Amino acid sequence: MRIITLTTDFETQDWFVGTMKGVIATIDPKVSVVDITHAIESGDIRSGAFALAASYKYFPTGTVHLAIVDPGVGSNRRAIAIQTERYFFVGPDNGVLSFAVRSEEIKSVHALENETWFLKPVSQTFHGRDVFAPVAAHLARGVSIAKLGPAVANFVRLDWREAKVHGKSIEGEVIYIDKFGNSITNISTSTVGRLGKEHFEIFKGRKRICRIGTHYQSVSARQAVAVPGSSGYLEIAVNGGNASAMLGLRAGDRVTVR
Amino acid sequence: MRIITLTTDFETQDWFVGTMKGVIATIDPKVSVVDITHAIESGDIRSGAFALAASYKYFPTGTVHLAIVDPGVGSNRRAIAIQTERYFFVGPDNGVLSFAVRSEEIKSVHALENETWFLKPVSQTFHGRDVFAPVAAHLARGVSIAKLGPAVANFVRLDWREAKVHGKSIEGEVIYIDKFGNSITNISTSTVGRLGKEHFEIFKGRKRICRIGTHYQSVSARQAVAVPGSSGYLEIAVNGGNASAMLGLRAGDRVTVR
Amino acid sequence: MRIITLTTDFETQDWFVGTMKGVIATIDPKVSVVDITHAIESGDIRSGAFALAASYKYFPTGTVHLAIVDPGVGSNRRAIAIQTERYFFVGPDNGVLSFAVRSEEIKSVHALENETWFLKPVSQTFHGRDVFAPVAAHLARGVSIAKLGPAVANFVRLDWREAKVHGKSIEGEVIYIDKFGNSITNISTSTVGRLGKEHFEIFKGRKRICRIGTHYQSVSARQAVAVPGSSGYLEIAVNGGNASAMLGLRAGDRVTVR
Repeated sequence: MRIITLTTDFETQDWFVGTMKGVIATIDPKVSVVDITHAIESGDIRSGAFALAASYKYFPTGTVHLAIVDPGVGSNRRAIAIQTERYFFVGPDNGVLSFAVRSEEIKSVHALENETWFLKPVSQTFHGRDVFAPVAAHLARGVSIAKLGPAVANFVRLDWREAKVHGKSIEGEVIYIDKFGNSITNISTSTVGRLGKEHFEIFKGRKRICRIGTHYQSVSARQAVAVPGSSGYLEIAVNGGNASAMLGLRAGDRVTVR
Repeated sequence: MRIITLTTDFETQDWFVGTMKGVIATIDPKVSVVDITHAIESGDIRSGAFALAASYKYFPTGTVHLAIVDPGVGSNRRAIAIQTERYFFVGPDNGVLSFAVRSEEIKSVHALENETWFLKPVSQTFHGRDVFAPVAAHLARGVSIAKLGPAVANFVRLDWREAKVHGKSIEGEVIYIDKFGNSITNISTSTVGRLGKEHFEIFKGRKRICRIGTHYQSVSARQAVAVPGSSGYLEIAVNGGNASAMLGLRAGDRVTVR
Repeated sequence: MRIITLTTDFETQDWFVGTMKGVIATIDPKVSVVDITHAIESGDIRSGAFALAASYKYFPTGTVHLAIVDPGVGSNRRAIAIQTERYFFVGPDNGVLSFAVRSEEIKSVHALENETWFLKPVSQTFHGRDVFAPVAAHLARGVSIAKLGPAVANFVRLDWREAKVHGKSIEGEVIYIDKFGNSITNISTSTVGRLGKEHFEIFKGRKRICRIGTHYQSVSARQAVAVPGSSGYLEIAVNGGNASAMLGLRAGDRVTVR
């Protein structure tokens, strides 16, 4: 079974996502569509890129990952498809695909310019339906990426801000708040591991937030703890509570491990 | 693969939608169920009808479209199935199917009265599970519409309020606010096209709202623009913002193109 | 087609649910995943247990029901799989499966200890991805439950508070508020039936709330009525309104049928 995943900021209250699935089913009824999320904040390309990067590699080889956070729809921004060793990625060329492909071996990148694969007429407001869904479906059913349009040498890569090690401390930032309020940082757990196995604490500015533990319940109820998160990054949580709300953490906040 | 689409006001926080999918899978494991939306405002039949009308034709021939916005569940309101040239439509006979079938050639309409196809006992509060899901599944697996119950001559059609052309101006109204705050009107883009290619502006009462553009980013950030929307109607948007909130637009508001 | 259902408190705004579906598709591409709900209140094990109990039996024989409301993830709480006459149930051993299996004939219960079926490395925060999804997928593709780990004699059963009959009255409580505000009680409609067919009224303390009717519209608009709900329990509703909000009903509130 071929799979297309969807990562968008469309939400599911309107008919947009369902319509895209109809377009895909019309082109290839054997494709299975999996929603990663449709709740990216409107136009928040970085969060869309992070959600895709955190999930794409759990899908079978050959999966087509379609990500649409596209404030520039209808303008002359480019649309692209990227083929890597294991996957295809399709979306607007605004960086939304760029975190996912950071650790992938890229085979080719093509601009979506061949209108053969589009749904006509192409609207200027819903390329998800008219451009991206049909192109993803044709890729899933075996159309070669080279037929989608000309190869392109470059594509937009968002700046991935690495946490920095200074001696025995690491400076990073909060990059994503999840639904439980857990505050995911850009400090990889392997970086923390390399500093040795001592006791570590997390600071926001000069204020101590919590220590590092192994799991949420490694501290008492309502206490904060930083745990090795499932995406490979340190994640600040509150046992049974909402760390973002209780500690005032937001995306972009700088945090330090000492 | 056979497809059943779902358009409801059930939301997805309870088990209602999942249960319907279980009922369908039990009757026909090969049916693929696609959610159009479950977030129609409770009991808002017009919005449900519009969501279905905007999306149904993007699905493969033979798709069964099930729409349930059903404040009268358990009362003596009728339930119907409609067969058109390409699709089946199933739902309560309260108008929720009527916008979608406006431009379809209707072959037959039957009342859902044959209890053979129901899940027994039939509850008085959840016909989605006990009547509509099983009937849709049986239609999808090939049961003839004539076996569902007697043919009926009429069904409830909601009043579709057409925008009106007066010389060089068009009077219409806002009919749907989408998740981005885009305010979809009942002014079809073809009607605007017929007035010629000059500069047009949109007014709410005497207040000018914006001009007509080609896409969201055809105006500066935070500026309003009316664009040809993907449903075929003029849609009032704000580039990077929420037009409904920023311009105070609501469903039912009268707007004029001049 | 094999089915895995999902009942969680993960919500769908992050990538958690999509990632689990990727893991399942990688192990068995022929499994069809059906969402029951992902909107259980964070950590609300009782509501998760009730949602699963209200829906599981509408799925085909052989379905694997996976329920994850798991505040103790990463601690030493046990994870289990239960095989009944018709289904498999998988989840943390905290009671979330216990309402569903109340009326099922249990064949065997096994602890999930054999790491062969896990995704490695196992994170301490996302067993949905690393333990539960892969175990459910292996069960769905035919791995014997006995291979998952040792048989266990007991598992956590939440206290199911039965409504009590006193002569001609029944004392119960509100156990779940659904999205329409309908307030589902633990008073089964069969218990009400056994009291005979007279006129019944519902009280909250000494305050009369409403009478029992057959369906929502059996009272005037905006009036309250208790109807035989689709889960088999009496459910307090307001015709065209939100009973929970309008009558101040909450889970745990005691109500009496007289």
